[in-house]
Amino acid sequence: MKRDILIIGGGPAGISAARFAKLMNPKLEVALVRTSPLMVIPCAIPYSLGRAVPRDSIVIPDSMVTGVGVDLLVDVVVEVKDKVATLQSGEKIEFDKLILAVGSKPIVPPIPGADLENVFFVKDRNSMIRIEEALERAASVVIVGGGFIGLEVGTELRRRGMDVTIVELLPHCLQTVFDEEFCEAAEFKMRSEDIRICTRSTAIGIEEDRGMKRVHLDSGVDLLADVVIFGIGVRANTDLASKMGLELGRFGVKTNQYLETSREGVFAAGDCRTKINFVTGKETPVKLASIAVWEGMTAAANAISEHRREFPGVIGAFATKIFDLSLGMAGLNEKMAQGEGIQYVVGTCEVPDKHPATMPETRNLFLKLIFDRASGSIIGAETQGGDSVGELINFLSFCIGKKMKVDDLVFLQHCSHPLLTPLPSSNPVMLASKDAMMKM
Amino acid sequence: MKRDILIIGGGPAGISAARFAKLMNPKLEVALVRTSPLMVIPCAIPYSLGRAVPRDSIVIPDSMVTGVGVDLLVDVVVEVKDKVATLQSGEKIEFDKLILAVGSKPIVPPIPGADLENVFFVKDRNSMIRIEEALERAASVVIVGGGFIGLEVGTELRRRGMDVTIVELLPHCLQTVFDEEFCEAAEFKMRSEDIRICTRSTAIGIEEDRGMKRVHLDSGVDLLADVVIFGIGVRANTDLASKMGLELGRFGVKTNQYLETSREGVFAAGDCRTKINFVTGKETPVKLASIAVWEGMTAAANAISEHRREFPGVIGAFATKIFDLSLGMAGLNEKMAQGEGIQYVVGTCEVPDKHPATMPETRNLFLKLIFDRASGSIIGAETQGGDSVGELINFLSFCIGKKMKVDDLVFLQHCSHPLLTPLPSSNPVMLASKDAMMKM
Repeated sequence: MKRDILIIGGGPAGISAARFAKLMNPKLEVALVRTSPLMVIPCAIPYSLGRAVPRDSIVIPDSMVTGVGVDLLVDVVVEVKDKVATLQSGEKIEFDKLILAVGSKPIVPPIPGADLENVFFVKDRNSMIRIEEALERAASVVIVGGGFIGLEVGTELRRRGMDVTIVELLPHCLQTVFDEEFCEAAEFKMRSEDIRICTRSTAIGIEEDRGMKRVHLDSGVDLLADVVIFGIGVRANTDLASKMGLELGRFGVKTNQYLETSREGVFAAGDCRTKINFVTGKETPVKLASIAVWEGMTAAANAISEHRREFPGVIGAFATKIFDLSLGMAGLNEKMAQGEGIQYVVGTCEVPDKHPATMPETRNLFLKLIFDRASGSIIGAETQGGDSVGELINFLSFCIGKKMKVDDLVFLQHCSHPLLTPLPSSNPVMLASKDAMMKM
Repeated sequence: MKRDILIIGGGPAGISAARFAKLMNPKLEVALVRTSPLMVIPCAIPYSLGRAVPRDSIVIPDSMVTGVGVDLLVDVVVEVKDKVATLQSGEKIEFDKLILAVGSKPIVPPIPGADLENVFFVKDRNSMIRIEEALERAASVVIVGGGFIGLEVGTELRRRGMDVTIVELLPHCLQTVFDEEFCEAAEFKMRSEDIRICTRSTAIGIEEDRGMKRVHLDSGVDLLADVVIFGIGVRANTDLASKMGLELGRFGVKTNQYLETSREGVFAAGDCRTKINFVTGKETPVKLASIAVWEGMTAAANAISEHRREFPGVIGAFATKIFDLSLGMAGLNEKMAQGEGIQYVVGTCEVPDKHPATMPETRNLFLKLIFDRASGSIIGAETQGGDSVGELINFLSFCIGKKMKVDDLVFLQHCSHPLLTPLPSSNPVMLASKDAMMKM
């Protein structure tokens, strides 16, 4: 049977493409092929490792795909030629449109000892289970990589009572996303919970040492731990795209603004696709499940409809929580704006996130907004505080996408409640925008 | 000394007008006259009554006004003639522009016993202190009025261990703001915490009964309690405006789109002003501190600048928390849209507010969005769930104000984190908008 749409990859991009295609037109024949028998929510892996949630609860149920009438095949696509995909099992699937959603692969550094027992890369359910088994017998861990995954795994393992050390190449953890003051707040929080952090350090080799692992850093320091976990980023999976002869960009499969690759009728979505930054118009390595979901929907919409939907470029909206400190970011931070030679204006504010500030569980919310000086449009936001940070960054990401001006954000119709928000006169978006307005 | 701007009223509208005027032009001579020696954060009164916060911590420091160089006078304005205000003390203040921000007064029903001891109206710091003193010696309370203030006071007094009964005129509590399903969720939560609710009931009289108060309801039921608190709404304070001969609207002082009253150079902001609904263009009685703040800023901006800022009408963004249930609303609800004869489409979704749903403290988030069928623009939002409701409603209020289309909200660049948001594929705004899109 010929499929209207074949989707390769069962992660966030693949699932959302499959669901959206069936939502728009239930009569379409849609098939999804993926390699893993079980998919997990990728960003929930640290919380399974930390035992905050039961392992099986982070499995994405197949019914997400099969429940809407999409055929699910667990197999490996070994070749795509003309409009036929050949699977490892020998099966051949004829298709009209193809959506590549094959995701990314963890970066494995070429250092001695990276293949030792109890040295891990956070990747999929199998790697997660192997890490969990090793952690059962472990008291100490070295985490190489001070990005989101490294800090979240570190936080959760520390909560379990383990001895945790984080190794980061750059001067600060989280530095690829946040400005210095936010990175320092995150580091302060981790250190106050007795996590050791070695910044400006590279792991150059790992050795066995009496049942433990000895991690050599380029600084000369050696770290000893039961388990080593690498979280130094991921790289687009372009294996199949290369075989198919599709054009590649700097950070993955290249597409046009409709997410169509260099081959007509073949789309790419999610981590395997190289992305264009919404603000700068340049290629960016950013990879997020939330972007993948959105690209999956867009690719599906464009695969099935004549009315093509243009993809405006990625903003990149991040959120994380380190112990009780939540952080969020969207668009460009100040350093990125500087690096792009953009003339910008910064507005900041710091306010209690409930009112009055004596309210139990009140946290200080710090917000930094970046505006383009010439147009007055918001191009970036960074914030830290309590849990309201998540929805606040969603709001600001939306504002960046809609090119809202400083004026739109000063004169804001917002709600206010003692237990849920800052004072009515202290809406943080309003205050930080006012601060920027005064500097324009 | 002649003042550039005289502000009458020291609540949210007056304070924000004063601060904004000085922010825009520090050289302006600005004076603010208010009647109360101490101002409190109005929406925090229930939390002082409930002892969640110390009484003095809800006082708004005078430095909010004086700290930016505004002259503060505690006095009563008895007359405004030409460009001179006369105070009770005899002092006369000459001004160039006047901003009326005299707020509202609680509605006192004309029933026997409303003036008895231990029968209270929630109003200002003095009334709050009197209530607090009475509550020291009380075990039971009847609250007349099942709106926000009634439910919040009820929740907080129940938390203190008091016996609480709420009397509401309409078939449901919160019915002037929410659709039935949200009202019922709030009522269910209150009843599960052993608060009694008498709906479709009016208090028709109060009598002394052996040291307690006996509240007669029109249903024939009598309620006995130590203390009775009324929270049946507020009415614009138009006393001074009437004396001045300013034109009044249905719900307060009438202004044009620049917040200028029928007299040139005299502006009105906050609860004393009758408002225009952003969606319907009709007069609305809605009164909120957050709206007052925004009107105060706008009135100040228009009083000092030739470039006048048009006021687009009020959206009304509400949030409340009843025990652990947070609720929010902005714009029109479904019943209001029906009442206006608007052809609308509803989109809903219900998702766990963290992911996976086994994450500790996960709450179900229910979101209902109302779109205008003809234009596809969002005109209303209602939500209930955990604390993320506050910032979510801020976001949706903004979308209503910017007339965002269903399509803008389906293809959303959002963030996602296990501890802070639903799944990347389950952003509630995206899902509810998708649901609406399918019905259009």
